[in-house]
Amino acid sequence: MSVRIAELSSTSGVPVPTIKYYLREGLLPSGEPTGRNQAVYGEEHLRRLKLVRALVEVGGLSIAVVGEIVATLDASAEVTHHVLGVVQRSIAPVTPPVDDRDADAEVAAFLARRGWAHMARDPSVLALVGVVATANRLGHHRFADLLDGYAEANVAIARRDLDYLVLNSKPDEVVEDMVVATVLGDAALKALRRLAQREASAGLLAEE
Amino acid sequence: MSVRIAELSSTSGVPVPTIKYYLREGLLPSGEPTGRNQAVYGEEHLRRLKLVRALVEVGGLSIAVVGEIVATLDASAEVTHHVLGVVQRSIAPVTPPVDDRDADAEVAAFLARRGWAHMARDPSVLALVGVVATANRLGHHRFADLLDGYAEANVAIARRDLDYLVLNSKPDEVVEDMVVATVLGDAALKALRRLAQREASAGLLAEE
Repeated sequence: MSVRIAELSSTSGVPVPTIKYYLREGLLPSGEPTGRNQAVYGEEHLRRLKLVRALVEVGGLSIAVVGEIVATLDASAEVTHHVLGVVQRSIAPVTPPVDDRDADAEVAAFLARRGWAHMARDPSVLALVGVVATANRLGHHRFADLLDGYAEANVAIARRDLDYLVLNSKPDEVVEDMVVATVLGDAALKALRRLAQREASAGLLAEE
Repeated sequence: MSVRIAELSSTSGVPVPTIKYYLREGLLPSGEPTGRNQAVYGEEHLRRLKLVRALVEVGGLSIAVVGEIVATLDASAEVTHHVLGVVQRSIAPVTPPVDDRDADAEVAAFLARRGWAHMARDPSVLALVGVVATANRLGHHRFADLLDGYAEANVAIARRDLDYLVLNSKPDEVVEDMVVATVLGDAALKALRRLAQREASAGLLAEE
């Protein structure tokens, strides 16, 4: 495959101005120049374009975050624990930083109960503290009680996530696959929680 | 409690210009007028302000969506199945609409396997179709296989969500509680998935 931008656009369904924007922002590598102001694009551009679009549209990630992820993908010839860490942090949930000792203590106690490492500056730990602090501020002091059951369910989810990566990824694609599975997985899990709530709530109403 | 806007700001931690913006957008009811351009605010303003802030900052919801939720809260003297439906739809995941028969069929087959109602226009079902279509476009054709395991985990999550509401909500607060639990729960679940992935992946690496 070696096509001009117009065809890259029609094949991918991404409008030409959007492709140019991604090129300017470095989310997409430059094409092969074929003349003044002309270039052609290949398979890897199409593949990258689909990934960027998925991260932006389904993942709801900002252009800046997608840029970080893409830079990590490009930099990593080999998969290392470090690279996986960078990717995971880029797509970590973000909550505003809080200074709330009660929430800190509740999250620390929860992590200790599970035997999970407590890395105080891990964005996911910070996000959890932010959520518990917000719940407390809203008077939902029992919210932290949900964490144990939620964690249990997520152990099962994470096991399936890793199985999926181990079974389906070629070695040079595992980082990209991890990004895709994490971002699409977040969206799928959110939808499934609502469907499961609806089914459970319909069941409760039927019993009454 | 009956305070001026400056004190409402210092108590809630929300800056005065943001409070004024929420007032203009109807996210916060007007205060009690006490003179030309002056008003006082009470407990219900503080409570509402905390809720709006949580939905925007932790939930990442747009002002428009928060406006819809707040309007539903204000309109519902009684909790009805209808009101719960409106709230759930307002905080549903959104993916761009897709026209993909394969993804439609995969999601329909998944719902049939679970025995879950298939409402084709339910935003959560649409979101699921969007996610599967995106995965297929990226060449992740096995992604739909994850849905069954994810659904299983979410049945456990939804059961805990409903228990939480039943145990903790006063009748006139159940809708607000549902909004809070859903939005804060989404953020908590996302963080916990990453922590569980990290623990599981550290375990795998240790075994090698």
